[in-house]
Amino acid sequence: MKNIKSAGVIGAGVIGSGWIARLLLNGINVFVYDPSTEAPKYVSKVIDNAEKAYNQLLTSSLPQRGFLSFVNSIADVSKSSELIIEAVPERLSLKQSAYKEIELNADKNLIITSSTSGILPSDLQSEMKYPERLLVAHPFNPVYLLPLVEIVGGSKTSKESIERVSEIFTNIGMFPLHIKKEIPAFIADRLLESVWREALWLVNDDIATTEEIDDAIRYGFGLRWAQMGLFETYRLAGGEAGMRHFISQFGPCLEWPWTHLMDVPEFTDELVDKVSNQSDQQSGMYSIDELMEKRDNNLVDFLKVLKENQWGAGNALKEFDERLSDSIKKPEFSDLDLLNTLPTFTTEIPKEWADYNGHMTEARYLDCFSEATTEVMSIVGVDKNYIATTGSYFTVETHIRHLDEVVVGECVHTKTQIIYGENKKLHLFHFLYHDDGRLLATGEHMLIHVDLKTRSASMPNDLVLSRVRLIYEAHIKLPKPGGISRAVGDKH
Amino acid sequence: MKNIKSAGVIGAGVIGSGWIARLLLNGINVFVYDPSTEAPKYVSKVIDNAEKAYNQLLTSSLPQRGFLSFVNSIADVSKSSELIIEAVPERLSLKQSAYKEIELNADKNLIITSSTSGILPSDLQSEMKYPERLLVAHPFNPVYLLPLVEIVGGSKTSKESIERVSEIFTNIGMFPLHIKKEIPAFIADRLLESVWREALWLVNDDIATTEEIDDAIRYGFGLRWAQMGLFETYRLAGGEAGMRHFISQFGPCLEWPWTHLMDVPEFTDELVDKVSNQSDQQSGMYSIDELMEKRDNNLVDFLKVLKENQWGAGNALKEFDERLSDSIKKPEFSDLDLLNTLPTFTTEIPKEWADYNGHMTEARYLDCFSEATTEVMSIVGVDKNYIATTGSYFTVETHIRHLDEVVVGECVHTKTQIIYGENKKLHLFHFLYHDDGRLLATGEHMLIHVDLKTRSASMPNDLVLSRVRLIYEAHIKLPKPGGISRAVGDKH
Repeated sequence: MKNIKSAGVIGAGVIGSGWIARLLLNGINVFVYDPSTEAPKYVSKVIDNAEKAYNQLLTSSLPQRGFLSFVNSIADVSKSSELIIEAVPERLSLKQSAYKEIELNADKNLIITSSTSGILPSDLQSEMKYPERLLVAHPFNPVYLLPLVEIVGGSKTSKESIERVSEIFTNIGMFPLHIKKEIPAFIADRLLESVWREALWLVNDDIATTEEIDDAIRYGFGLRWAQMGLFETYRLAGGEAGMRHFISQFGPCLEWPWTHLMDVPEFTDELVDKVSNQSDQQSGMYSIDELMEKRDNNLVDFLKVLKENQWGAGNALKEFDERLSDSIKKPEFSDLDLLNTLPTFTTEIPKEWADYNGHMTEARYLDCFSEATTEVMSIVGVDKNYIATTGSYFTVETHIRHLDEVVVGECVHTKTQIIYGENKKLHLFHFLYHDDGRLLATGEHMLIHVDLKTRSASMPNDLVLSRVRLIYEAHIKLPKPGGISRAVGDKH
Repeated sequence: MKNIKSAGVIGAGVIGSGWIARLLLNGINVFVYDPSTEAPKYVSKVIDNAEKAYNQLLTSSLPQRGFLSFVNSIADVSKSSELIIEAVPERLSLKQSAYKEIELNADKNLIITSSTSGILPSDLQSEMKYPERLLVAHPFNPVYLLPLVEIVGGSKTSKESIERVSEIFTNIGMFPLHIKKEIPAFIADRLLESVWREALWLVNDDIATTEEIDDAIRYGFGLRWAQMGLFETYRLAGGEAGMRHFISQFGPCLEWPWTHLMDVPEFTDELVDKVSNQSDQQSGMYSIDELMEKRDNNLVDFLKVLKENQWGAGNALKEFDERLSDSIKKPEFSDLDLLNTLPTFTTEIPKEWADYNGHMTEARYLDCFSEATTEVMSIVGVDKNYIATTGSYFTVETHIRHLDEVVVGECVHTKTQIIYGENKKLHLFHFLYHDDGRLLATGEHMLIHVDLKTRSASMPNDLVLSRVRLIYEAHIKLPKPGGISRAVGDKH
């Protein structure tokens, strides 16, 4: 399953920019049409936010960023893309005229997705020449982070278009949810709309402020929904007897006056003022930029947690990350430059690695050296399969010299020299450099090859041993590292 | 603000047990009445889950667990408690008769909170002799983890009761949300009810299955709600122009047929079957225990993320943790036993510290030693204030010997010997022990005292220096640790 090479995006507002960022950072060239002169500046900011988030989110490196072109017309977008994403304002006529312009200029196989929050795809495609290529792909803000995209076909949409779009979006880390029946607002926005109506009544009637309503969500059921949604949460509330028990217990509440929803509040000037003023009171101390940064940091960390716990949206992230990792070509052993130290690890210092004032904490230096050791393992052939069948190297002794400091957000890398490698022993010396050239720390390590069944020392297999030897015999000609064989407290 | 010493809980179902666990683990004695013979077993399981979660969640240790007593009547609960939490099934008459029984047996100042999801406190208190002591405190499952508790007074509830209950619950790590006007189902359950109705329609009409609806939430807006709720999320969707812009853009949708909510679905047998069967299909591969474990792990990790990011529910956790930490009495320096190595760190190995097969990874050994060093700092007087005004010790060199393995969930502790401490230098030797007595690793460290403004070596102040010297002069009489002054690769 390969990524597409290029895509077009029409409309670069909040949603369009999110699409652009997700596509570009996945190595896809993007052609954008938006009449606003402010668009390039806004898009560039969203891409920066997305890149920052991805650097924290993904363990794999991203492919080379795609090329971004702002073009002067819908026609120009249409001529140059394999897929066009429409993200213009929510007016049927506006969307239909965009499709008309595309059909005049594009190949008939080019797929068009609408980002509409609620207009039916059958209505969107009603005037098209090739309606089978049009479907709704409704994403959620921020598009570069939230995996969900609702996929809804109209009566004339082809099965192939739906499958192809699902494949394309899966490939860029999303979770396409195919909704089988057309219905206004699809699934998520219907749920949101119902809460929105109820919440507006609560504000309107002065039962609660916007902040109190948000607190009622985020200190409570919001934390459940982020991982399990509604039904799975209620299954748990039913205890061992599950869903049936829950319904028998809470079903009767449907008869009670527990919502205002039989009725719709009217957006009078007074209600608009009340909601806006309360929102200012609640969140006005943060700029929108600050709120976006907070939101993205939280989302990144939630997604990492879910990936670690192999649950829900974390599964989509895991697959995405693995796909990225698989697509990176590792150099062959025979292509390695053995006349120099081996490049073994690079990272931007993540915020979790910081102490109270932003410096990398003591223990994280060993994280860097540990990652470098893992890369040496990979180079000499100690991979998953080898570990499962033969064994691995265990660190038995470590010596670290802390020479300089580094702060969050800066980039570091390690280089590794094999000091000795014969039989069961492997003696490594890692150098941790700041990307500005400063030597930050050194790590000297003795490793012993271990049989993982008996958990005692054992010989590596011939391939591993021969590779270790080859590097060792080449590296023995390199200068002896400073600080080698030191004990704690030795004089320099 | 001190914790209460004892509390009563009437009803030990899902909610009652959650209350019991939260109270007990906060060191409060709990008297429980529940007519079911199964109750003690179920409660004990919930306490175990809660304790496991707290061990992962909190950096501070919990106080000594309270004492749990199952008693034979409501009268017995009433006689022995400062606060009674009622968590009986949702029937007004049942709740009222419980209050009657309490009033016959309890002091008139004892406060009673109802855990009802929706009955009005004015109705609950209507037949009470001292109604000013009755209010609703509506928690969310799992009560031991979710901070939210909705506090709702009835027409006769006293301000003092509301304030006292809010204080008690804040003290045990909760976020009391005072709802100023009585309304059936309060805030959170009204929002939930609206989504529940809409979701039932979607299932009823075969638009989506329970799993698809849950996915639409947890891969999308659920991740936003867990941190920001509804209004703050929409403020962001409005871009720079904020809430007013959002309303002008999406306000008109209120007029559109975006929800079914003008109407209520009927729980026919067919609908109950459909929902239950779909739920089995979606989650039936997990037992309720497994789902609870997944949920708690995710909740713990979300709350930790939010604490780290200083946001929303994480703020409640942070305050709770700090309150616990402040309540722990540190031994005075003069009470320390200097004739032995210093106890410096204990932990249960958390799951994030594991490699693929559950062993603690290499780098986390240095985390343990780093924590032990921090404790030494605290002992000699290098605290927050000292660091802000004078300086700190920086590790310049580390030597670790890995001697044995440890797996997730096992408990370890460190002991520390000061090898040398004079002028700017501090030479430490940490021993990492498994609680079963095995020596797992040793960490030898040279530290230099540093002026944090110039970031160069400097003298400690007199108090710190004198304490370091006192320990050093005592520890010099201890045997020299094995493996001291080793360099990597030395023969034993």
